[in-house]
Amino acid sequence: VTNLADIKAAAERLRGISVRTPLFFNHELNRIARGTVLIKPECLQVTGSFKIRGAYNFLSQLTDDERRRGVVAWSSGNHAQGVAAAGGMLGVPAAIVMPEDAPKAKLDNTRKLGGEVITYDRYTGDREAIARRIAAERNAVTVPSYDHERIIAGQGTVGLEIAEQSLEMDMPPDQVLICCGGGGLSAGSAIALVAMLPGVSVHSVEPAGFDDTARSLARGERVQVAGDARSICDALQAHTPGEMTFAINRELLGAGLAVSDAEVCEAMRFAFLQLKMVIEPGGAVALAAVLSGKIDTEGKTTAVVLSGGNVDRQLYADIQNGWSG
Amino acid sequence: VTNLADIKAAAERLRGISVRTPLFFNHELNRIARGTVLIKPECLQVTGSFKIRGAYNFLSQLTDDERRRGVVAWSSGNHAQGVAAAGGMLGVPAAIVMPEDAPKAKLDNTRKLGGEVITYDRYTGDREAIARRIAAERNAVTVPSYDHERIIAGQGTVGLEIAEQSLEMDMPPDQVLICCGGGGLSAGSAIALVAMLPGVSVHSVEPAGFDDTARSLARGERVQVAGDARSICDALQAHTPGEMTFAINRELLGAGLAVSDAEVCEAMRFAFLQLKMVIEPGGAVALAAVLSGKIDTEGKTTAVVLSGGNVDRQLYADIQNGWSG
Repeated sequence: VTNLADIKAAAERLRGISVRTPLFFNHELNRIARGTVLIKPECLQVTGSFKIRGAYNFLSQLTDDERRRGVVAWSSGNHAQGVAAAGGMLGVPAAIVMPEDAPKAKLDNTRKLGGEVITYDRYTGDREAIARRIAAERNAVTVPSYDHERIIAGQGTVGLEIAEQSLEMDMPPDQVLICCGGGGLSAGSAIALVAMLPGVSVHSVEPAGFDDTARSLARGERVQVAGDARSICDALQAHTPGEMTFAINRELLGAGLAVSDAEVCEAMRFAFLQLKMVIEPGGAVALAAVLSGKIDTEGKTTAVVLSGGNVDRQLYADIQNGWSG
Repeated sequence: VTNLADIKAAAERLRGISVRTPLFFNHELNRIARGTVLIKPECLQVTGSFKIRGAYNFLSQLTDDERRRGVVAWSSGNHAQGVAAAGGMLGVPAAIVMPEDAPKAKLDNTRKLGGEVITYDRYTGDREAIARRIAAERNAVTVPSYDHERIIAGQGTVGLEIAEQSLEMDMPPDQVLICCGGGGLSAGSAIALVAMLPGVSVHSVEPAGFDDTARSLARGERVQVAGDARSICDALQAHTPGEMTFAINRELLGAGLAVSDAEVCEAMRFAFLQLKMVIEPGGAVALAAVLSGKIDTEGKTTAVVLSGGNVDRQLYADIQNGWSG
């Protein structure tokens, strides 16, 4: 199982590769929360989301032979860009299976970063099966998007930085809210946070309808959500938690939270107006949980991860103009 | 004259008040620049621009008697919000004279922060005269937006942080590009940068038509630009450099740069797509100078200040949709 030392080793590998994104606060947000809210903006990260952390940590540990054979991944877009960028940095050919309706910005950027994009239908195709078939044909290595210890360790550097930076600022959080798709970011970050900040509670935040981790945490075992759910959060549409990630999250997370599309859109408007940051729907769920009062923040210090900012121009404009999903 | 010690003292006063905004890089920007570009995003600052730094440094040094009498400022919007916020924190009543066509976000936020807003016509009124009359009537203290040593020292903390952070990252810049209206940010920052980074060159960046500092630097004396100039950069519409700021800038700055509205809009689009940051037109000029090749960045380390992000939703959407001024 991934531990703090693995995460620190990942942080070493990522030095000069990923950005040590800041941890900062905003007076208006503090006023609304009646407490202190520390913002960790991974939208400022290389490729616009935290995903480069896990992808690079994984790819940089491949053998020379594996590097030559290349990698195959499946992703709604942020892991895709992370894998493509890491592949480009390390000279590893990267093919990525992506939904054909993924945000254009994510498709375009993955190609621009040198990734070979293979599209499929999100609602009928099985992306993992497609990726595994291609990997078998090419004798390539698959890069899971969350359920692997090197991915978990890489994403965990977000939690490591939150712990380090909040201690430097003398503002250790009482609670940390982290968006959750398959659970890699929350699992890795929780390992670092719980190890470094005694008494901290860590909560997953998911889109309503895709709150498989919240339900699984409540039940104490992995459950599956309905297949017909829809959400504006294209990055967080997991139907069941990862096996490895849930084994960690079950031990380390508090109750899971869920937010509606309307709450996500409101958070994206707040981020534009007050934080001056472009966040994508999936990147806004933790902020949405604070703004919509899903968790008590009064008199507490709460850290929220803004996990990404890869959103299409038109959707962004529509949301800023008041559209709420 | 303001010196490094004054700026360090201002940094102490600002501890816990202003955000120590990060210094970070972006691979795509580095690729375009063929060098390293360090981004200092003051759009993430409290009130959405660097102006809280100077305003708080000024207001926190008022006597008890002066605090009771209150302050009066004039501003196109960012200094307004800085003064209103600092006034709110320190319990000092703040009246601010603002153009009636200032961005709505700036007018609204200044009021929301507790500032008393008095509007005037940007093209016919004399904001400084109006502010001085009100100050005289109320026996209040005027807060200049740039031409005062406490303002210069406060804004200089931006340069201090760039120097400190770039040294921590072991990436001291060869050149630093700073937007310039009256010249407070560039003067204060240049003092810190030149003192701490031997060999660095610091350049002002202005909107074309309002390049009074560039022309003054070239002439070696303060000159005035034509009164009929127009620019999308509402925050940078100074017609002549400050007396105090120019005395400093003349000694410390390299040649001044200027960018067009179209170049500014392109930089705002780049910031949305690649940096995931909302920057206002005036906040985009230094980035625009890099993207449009106004200065040689190849093989060099160049720091750029993104000075603010207070832009109206509609203008922002229009620019993202391709409008270029």
